[in-house]
Amino acid sequence: MTTVEEKTISSERIYEGTILNLRKDRVTIKDGKTSWREIVEHSGGVAIAAVTDEGKLVMVKQFRKAAESVMLEVPAGKTEPGEDIAAAAMRELKEETGYSADKLEHVSQFFTSIGYSTEVLHLYLATGLTPGETDFDENEAIEIYEYTTDELMEMIDTGEIADAKSIVAVLTVKMKGL
Amino acid sequence: MTTVEEKTISSERIYEGTILNLRKDRVTIKDGKTSWREIVEHSGGVAIAAVTDEGKLVMVKQFRKAAESVMLEVPAGKTEPGEDIAAAAMRELKEETGYSADKLEHVSQFFTSIGYSTEVLHLYLATGLTPGETDFDENEAIEIYEYTTDELMEMIDTGEIADAKSIVAVLTVKMKGL
Repeated sequence: MTTVEEKTISSERIYEGTILNLRKDRVTIKDGKTSWREIVEHSGGVAIAAVTDEGKLVMVKQFRKAAESVMLEVPAGKTEPGEDIAAAAMRELKEETGYSADKLEHVSQFFTSIGYSTEVLHLYLATGLTPGETDFDENEAIEIYEYTTDELMEMIDTGEIADAKSIVAVLTVKMKGL
Repeated sequence: MTTVEEKTISSERIYEGTILNLRKDRVTIKDGKTSWREIVEHSGGVAIAAVTDEGKLVMVKQFRKAAESVMLEVPAGKTEPGEDIAAAAMRELKEETGYSADKLEHVSQFFTSIGYSTEVLHLYLATGLTPGETDFDENEAIEIYEYTTDELMEMIDTGEIADAKSIVAVLTVKMKGL
């Protein structure tokens, strides 16, 4: 068995929205057959593992409609059109937590839901933090917390942290021994 | 600032499909205002960190339309309606890699794209592997590989692995020292 590139035969536009679009592609698959792929188009964004001088990770808590619950996550957000990715990381960190970072390091990048979404997140490690004023988007309501990686590892075990990008961030910082 | 539950005022059904549905909710936000939330409904699934007796992680390679490229990932798939989650992990591991596992341990669970998708993945650690025949879905074309966690960590650094669930799996196995 080998991998087979799926060529698009036709594409149906289903929805164009604010944070995402949806399309349905008819594609070639193996053995000359065809199938359908439902694809969410998302412009992607950044997530930030921000580590304080005390070695704690800065976390934000907000209500998430998709989960119908309050979620504890690392700061994150969409990249704006034409915006440099590292600049987006600095901006989102400042907006959501008030912190500015002396040092920003690109750690990894990943599709969040490779089966159906074009969304790619870039994870940055931010250190040398200086506190300042937050600047939430008008429809954001966010609480800020700081935890050690050991506390966060425990929250992953209990399911209190249940967000993929945040788990990647916590495990990355834990592994780097920061 | 505190978190605010977003109550649904109205909900518009935009699409009902094969692997996902899309709806648009009008919700209450802070200060008595309202906003819109675009929500992808997805039934969720499983991902498997399968570690061989030689300490290698079993990976699968397949073309992914959302990425328009071949991706290296841990085995994963959707839970079938009414199916036990651990049984789904055993089934997907067998179908995609041929391996059966003596031991299956639930490691973590996470929303993949908390900003807009209801999809939750459950990550399992599978050990005590016995090889066997694969049983791909008819529209899957998959190659199987085995790598050490050090090799996989390097592939995360280079971007060759760029899939959130797979990064969580690799970092988890690396941290457990398997």
